[in-house]
Amino acid sequence: MSESPRDGTIGGEARFPDLADVARAVQASSRAERALWLRSVADSIDAERDALVAIADRETHLGSARLSGEVARTTGQLRLFAEVIEEGSYLEAIVDTPAPDATPPRPGIRRFLRPLGPVAVFSASNFPFAFSVAGGDTASALAAGCPVVVKAHSGHPELSRATARVVREALAEAGAPDGVFSLVEGREAGRRLAREPAVKAVAFTGSLDGGRGLLAAIAERPDPIPFFGELGSVNPVVVTPAAVQARGELIADGLVDSFTLGGGQFCTKPGVVFVPAGFAATEALRLAVERRPAFTLLTERIADAFLPGAERLLAVDGVRVVAGEVSGAAEGVRAVALQTTVAAFVSHSAVLLEECFGPLTLLVEYDSLDEVEAALALVDGSLTATLHAEADEGAEVGRLVDLLSERAGRVLFDGWPTGVAVTWGQHHGGPWPATNSQHTSVGATAIRRFLRPIAYQNAPEAALPVDLRDDVLRHIPHRLDGRLEFPEDQNHAE
Amino acid sequence: MSESPRDGTIGGEARFPDLADVARAVQASSRAERALWLRSVADSIDAERDALVAIADRETHLGSARLSGEVARTTGQLRLFAEVIEEGSYLEAIVDTPAPDATPPRPGIRRFLRPLGPVAVFSASNFPFAFSVAGGDTASALAAGCPVVVKAHSGHPELSRATARVVREALAEAGAPDGVFSLVEGREAGRRLAREPAVKAVAFTGSLDGGRGLLAAIAERPDPIPFFGELGSVNPVVVTPAAVQARGELIADGLVDSFTLGGGQFCTKPGVVFVPAGFAATEALRLAVERRPAFTLLTERIADAFLPGAERLLAVDGVRVVAGEVSGAAEGVRAVALQTTVAAFVSHSAVLLEECFGPLTLLVEYDSLDEVEAALALVDGSLTATLHAEADEGAEVGRLVDLLSERAGRVLFDGWPTGVAVTWGQHHGGPWPATNSQHTSVGATAIRRFLRPIAYQNAPEAALPVDLRDDVLRHIPHRLDGRLEFPEDQNHAE
Repeated sequence: MSESPRDGTIGGEARFPDLADVARAVQASSRAERALWLRSVADSIDAERDALVAIADRETHLGSARLSGEVARTTGQLRLFAEVIEEGSYLEAIVDTPAPDATPPRPGIRRFLRPLGPVAVFSASNFPFAFSVAGGDTASALAAGCPVVVKAHSGHPELSRATARVVREALAEAGAPDGVFSLVEGREAGRRLAREPAVKAVAFTGSLDGGRGLLAAIAERPDPIPFFGELGSVNPVVVTPAAVQARGELIADGLVDSFTLGGGQFCTKPGVVFVPAGFAATEALRLAVERRPAFTLLTERIADAFLPGAERLLAVDGVRVVAGEVSGAAEGVRAVALQTTVAAFVSHSAVLLEECFGPLTLLVEYDSLDEVEAALALVDGSLTATLHAEADEGAEVGRLVDLLSERAGRVLFDGWPTGVAVTWGQHHGGPWPATNSQHTSVGATAIRRFLRPIAYQNAPEAALPVDLRDDVLRHIPHRLDGRLEFPEDQNHAE
Repeated sequence: MSESPRDGTIGGEARFPDLADVARAVQASSRAERALWLRSVADSIDAERDALVAIADRETHLGSARLSGEVARTTGQLRLFAEVIEEGSYLEAIVDTPAPDATPPRPGIRRFLRPLGPVAVFSASNFPFAFSVAGGDTASALAAGCPVVVKAHSGHPELSRATARVVREALAEAGAPDGVFSLVEGREAGRRLAREPAVKAVAFTGSLDGGRGLLAAIAERPDPIPFFGELGSVNPVVVTPAAVQARGELIADGLVDSFTLGGGQFCTKPGVVFVPAGFAATEALRLAVERRPAFTLLTERIADAFLPGAERLLAVDGVRVVAGEVSGAAEGVRAVALQTTVAAFVSHSAVLLEECFGPLTLLVEYDSLDEVEAALALVDGSLTATLHAEADEGAEVGRLVDLLSERAGRVLFDGWPTGVAVTWGQHHGGPWPATNSQHTSVGATAIRRFLRPIAYQNAPEAALPVDLRDDVLRHIPHRLDGRLEFPEDQNHAE
């Protein structure tokens, strides 16, 4: 299938002449139809896995094992959203029956969530499948009933085109309306996309600067549409003295695995780690870092930014290398752990909290947990926050949990933040600049981003959207006069 | 109770030194405690009703009957949110049990919605109770567990202070933390509020210009917080020829009641009404308009804007007065219905769609419903859209419902949009500029604006927020491994 003219190859004003019409066609599809589309895309990607992984490995250097796993995650995600829309709770259907004799009289109201309209998806470089062309944003927007226009990431153009071909063919085979999915390329096409009148929401994963630029473009629209950005995150970790005492070596190994996973190019990479004084100098940490191979980073731009980023941190008074080395030779980038004190961290937090994309972390050594509490006040919103503690540490740990909860979308205990399970309950979001904080981009509830409520007052049955009619409502969870009602035939997916 | 220094009477940078601490105290409250606070406020306002209504009538001229009704609506709203948080669905609790043997292993995740933090509420002039100091924004934010700072509307300063006193005393009596509610006054205080670092969301009801100004201030924050604006709405109505034939006089009466209710100062006022050619000239319409008394508008500013606004519409070629008169004499403003054709409407839609606050509506006469469909494409997002049709009109009406649904948050059949029932299913929102479209400011789900998701991964029971622990979850609806679970003891409010 060749790229159609709407796929970013033409200039001019009217780039998406039919997007609003396409949105109507998609809006008119049933949940069962869209579940079929999503499963068709998942099956096609699985069938093309080896060919796609080969292209992806050539363009991203992430390795075929990791990339094959990412394909499985991506197709699992498409299938999860098929289950989510079949189950139907996501519609948030509410029925108020009329009460004409109440004071004041109460009308009959039926409310649910309807698709927002065409969604622009700006893909990420670091997950060429799961956060790219057929990733979570695309899956959840299609599930919601919204056409999708993906802006390809320049880090994997060939993979983007190949995936887009598979997606389009699979959608066409499953009977989805023409134009429900398209791909554009290039910075200028992206800027136009954010200004396109028919586009009703933007999902973006990328840098804080890039996100702020898009947000400014959206603010200038006659209708400032919702922007769901995931922009940057340092993912603080706190390790208590008792945890180090109980399992210091395990923690050192786990931390190094986590901050070097995927070459440290995860938005959930633990970037700032508060540890008891002395921990950074341990042999376990040094060995774990030195065991890592050199990493070829995703793009030249990321590789070019890594060394200056690391050197900016090292230039701060009181920051030093404790394991590995700051290097950017032709053969790749080495993992490195830096160390500093809480006092230095507090004095230079603005510089030290700048996200450095790559296999680097900063260990901040403390003498007391009180110091950590003061330092955490300086840490911006993050996708995750992690605590390694022991069960008997009590009130002090409770305060830490409160502080971490204020700053993060996901709080982890005795684990590591990299690796985001795609489940019903997952939350991948967090206070600014991690995201715009009220929604997730991973997990079943990610679909809420692309929906808006609408209420029908005293509507005759025939005028109601299909999902608000009695014979459909009977089969999905809904609220009736304030009381939650279950479908009798509920048949949930796990 | 006197105004405290935080109540907008001081200058300087650090206006809300303790707001973040207050937020922690409120966050730590239980749902049962907050339900008590809300009912205490409702009871106190009911007890002070007559005194408050007297002040309100003096400041707004809305009349004591309407104002007493509005007090009942306001206190009913406070009590509804008490029920909403007791019932617990609003927490959207989700539990994924751990599956360590799955590929990849799945962690245990518990997710719910937590309070966003301090909320700034900018109150409206036209509902001095229901959209002001103790209105829906305040009620839903307190219910969510967020401290509230209200920016008083300059149209009813004395009432704002009196209400704030009642609210504060009632909250203190019910044991709410000090500082959970405060009031500021003046434009400059409002601007500072939108920039205050501790404030985590802004709710605003007012003009498009005012809303855009606040949005620009928020965009300049280091952390652009959520803005929930309700900015302007023309609330289109379509009346079919069959509906006129069946009940033309009733429709004329209903329309005039609706567009003159509260002096036409409702955000849901029907501002543009598509009617069959000839309807505007009917005796029924003329009589209904002329029966209206003169209205004293809410503020001098609104009164001063009404005449020029009406004259701007009348200056358009093809627009004329068909009932009432454009007048702004000292004794008040008269109701007026204007008439034009679809052709003139299409040529001058930008001018004709500007919201004119006051007892005025524009009847747009059409020859065929195809013309209406073309004209509707020019109508911006609205809070409501209304259709008067007959049951047997079929496909043409179906297309109109689709078009109206694209443009509005609430679609009404054979009724009038003024008067918004406060219920579980109500939706008071709609595409820009009506609101920022994904949330409501009226009804049970308004609470979602002031919450954000958070997930706890592998958390020990003692580290979990109370509402995510097994012994609480058992009593609220939640999702367990993809399956909705009901509390056995569910005891819903109607």
